[in-house]
Amino acid sequence: MSLVIVGSVAFDTIETPRERREKIVGGSGTYCALAASFFTRPKIVGVVGRDFPKEAIELFKKRKIDIGGLKVKEGKTFHWEGRYGCDPNQRTTIRTELNVFEDFKPELPSGYWGADILFLANIDPDMHEPILKQVQKPKLVAMDTIRLWIETKPEALFRELQHVHLFFANDEEIKLLSRETNLIKGGRKLLECGPSIIIVKKGEHGALVFGKEFIFGLPAHPCEEVIDPTGAGDCFAGGFLGYLDKVKDFSGREIRRAAVFGSVLASFAIEDFGIDRLKSLTQGEVEARFRYFKRLVSF
Amino acid sequence: MSLVIVGSVAFDTIETPRERREKIVGGSGTYCALAASFFTRPKIVGVVGRDFPKEAIELFKKRKIDIGGLKVKEGKTFHWEGRYGCDPNQRTTIRTELNVFEDFKPELPSGYWGADILFLANIDPDMHEPILKQVQKPKLVAMDTIRLWIETKPEALFRELQHVHLFFANDEEIKLLSRETNLIKGGRKLLECGPSIIIVKKGEHGALVFGKEFIFGLPAHPCEEVIDPTGAGDCFAGGFLGYLDKVKDFSGREIRRAAVFGSVLASFAIEDFGIDRLKSLTQGEVEARFRYFKRLVSF
Repeated sequence: MSLVIVGSVAFDTIETPRERREKIVGGSGTYCALAASFFTRPKIVGVVGRDFPKEAIELFKKRKIDIGGLKVKEGKTFHWEGRYGCDPNQRTTIRTELNVFEDFKPELPSGYWGADILFLANIDPDMHEPILKQVQKPKLVAMDTIRLWIETKPEALFRELQHVHLFFANDEEIKLLSRETNLIKGGRKLLECGPSIIIVKKGEHGALVFGKEFIFGLPAHPCEEVIDPTGAGDCFAGGFLGYLDKVKDFSGREIRRAAVFGSVLASFAIEDFGIDRLKSLTQGEVEARFRYFKRLVSF
Repeated sequence: MSLVIVGSVAFDTIETPRERREKIVGGSGTYCALAASFFTRPKIVGVVGRDFPKEAIELFKKRKIDIGGLKVKEGKTFHWEGRYGCDPNQRTTIRTELNVFEDFKPELPSGYWGADILFLANIDPDMHEPILKQVQKPKLVAMDTIRLWIETKPEALFRELQHVHLFFANDEEIKLLSRETNLIKGGRKLLECGPSIIIVKKGEHGALVFGKEFIFGLPAHPCEEVIDPTGAGDCFAGGFLGYLDKVKDFSGREIRRAAVFGSVLASFAIEDFGIDRLKSLTQGEVEARFRYFKRLVSF
């Protein structure tokens, strides 16, 4: 199988109560592809400027990520700056410089057209259609979103939800989109908007997966110190979809296991700044944490 | 074995965005004993006024709750009034009339002295010692608390934590007591204050159990409509301790299962106002929901 990820490859400047990091490598596509690379060889579609570091490109290659769809353009790479409060769930965007991402029109190399799984990571819903047209017969299309699109393009978002099988969102996004204060009601309501699976990421409270005939719940990995929550949601999606691409099976059983691997990858991502923890992460650590989750919930 | 519960037996006036109920039967001792009665024959210690309804006493008897420790005094029953917002986690206390509860000095009938499990439900920490003196050799002592005692009697609370095996708290209480924003750090910190087990109730996000050598996590039962959250925490404790009293085994395995039964009872309690759902609840429904939790988390 093959997994194509369309998303941002960017610089992040991150401030937490303890530390500030300037222009480190980030972006939804970056996190997602790195996480997925523990299961499969994802193909990434994105754009960077000439200032994007060679070391990051080397890391993608080392992790066997196909970067045929990653364009390098004249200009500067997308740069986002954010600040976290003492509660890592509280995030403020300080600055967003789109730069080369501003007029990003994703073009998929011919080797990507036969993708089995397509992930549209946090991108403008109006960009979905032209991307979908470039993929011949995807078995599974997944999307994610951000508050920005919910607030500025809700109609486009609901239109695109009709064309996807899987929708990843955090609890706040589910409540905003469904206009429900109860997350279970909200999740079930969104199931009626198109997707057959809704995945709700709740940060320190774990995740919920809504299928047409089942609900799966998982607590979060008990993490004593969240160093940097950036990219946790993207790593969740990357681990989830990377695993599905590997097992080639979208049954309820594998969807549940995919959610656990999503949680595993997200739980590692927050243990260090940016993509640092993913750089040192080993296959053995991923598998050991999957087993930890088994023990965590067993009764 | 035997389980003795010391707590309030009261009237509650409850307002939710949908409905208002005046002076319905409630209180931590009431909820806890009713929940525990699905597993064992709990003994309750409390005080009510002459205005407390006979039907509630009859319900206790029907559920085989030992009311030998429930005093009826001249005067009015403790009356609490609270209001919930659209988010059922947001609760405002409108009024607290202690009435006969004001000078409640718990006296345990001699039949209670040999209790194996003692639960101190939300009561003034300064009342713990005189109660503990009345119980000969409890195998397990558990306590709960409320924000009021954390804010007004923190020293007494920490002193009493040293004398208990199990401590039930919600996430807000854990953070307040431990002065940690991270719940895992907070839970582990409180483990060092005396109890060997800390149970964190997180409402719609489920529960966490911290042992010296394990952590157990469980999502909440996916409830689409919380009618009245009052008493959910007390039912959690009642289901938990009632189950332990039944199985007579405090091993890690049974502690985990007890937490699931706690969640089961809490999940029923919120489905109707006050104790109404507990009145109609059957043993079969309790067992079916336990099996539902198994499916909810299995992967």
